[in-house]
Amino acid sequence: MSPKPPSTPLDPAVAELERLRASIDNIDAALIHMLAERFRCTQEVGKLKARAHLPPADPSRETRQIERLRQLARDAHLDPDFAEKFLAFVIREVIRHHEAIAADARRASEG
Amino acid sequence: MSPKPPSTPLDPAVAELERLRASIDNIDAALIHMLAERFRCTQEVGKLKARAHLPPADPSRETRQIERLRQLARDAHLDPDFAEKFLAFVIREVIRHHEAIAADARRASEG
Repeated sequence: MSPKPPSTPLDPAVAELERLRASIDNIDAALIHMLAERFRCTQEVGKLKARAHLPPADPSRETRQIERLRQLARDAHLDPDFAEKFLAFVIREVIRHHEAIAADARRASEG
Repeated sequence: MSPKPPSTPLDPAVAELERLRASIDNIDAALIHMLAERFRCTQEVGKLKARAHLPPADPSRETRQIERLRQLARDAHLDPDFAEKFLAFVIREVIRHHEAIAADARRASEG
């Protein structure tokens, strides 16, 4: 009898790996959809701030966000430094979006 | 009569900003908890791979994950390049965790 190949579905380790990967894939789909919804909100914030002549940046809001996410991370046994890096990563993308909106607005007013 | 300060709760723009920020804060809490759960899964994957002597990296799995997340992003009107950068950001952290687990295991076997 030839040895069982490691990728057979009956191998318990491979079956467990497949189970964990299915959870990771579900979580990733949830993350992508939550991120899409977050950017919908920040696009609205960008348009609102431009319309109402509110300042684009709000450092005290950002400080509160960082502290809150670090605490949520600690409560969920997630590294708070990672949570802070994650927020910074997302905010960099928000700023990129807002710059694109501003550039579009400039082009529209010049065109 | 003095002019109404911009931060009064009755200003419709500020009220709308507060409404959007409350949604962003809810979404951020959901993201942090989903990320915490994702890292629980990848920690299990790391331990399982070490126990079952499965290879730590799986490039074909990663290629499939990238393509799937890019498609989910397109469906959700999120920039697929951002989704790919996001996955790379998370996977860097997973690798950092796995390296820490491996270092702990080495210390335990040497100690």
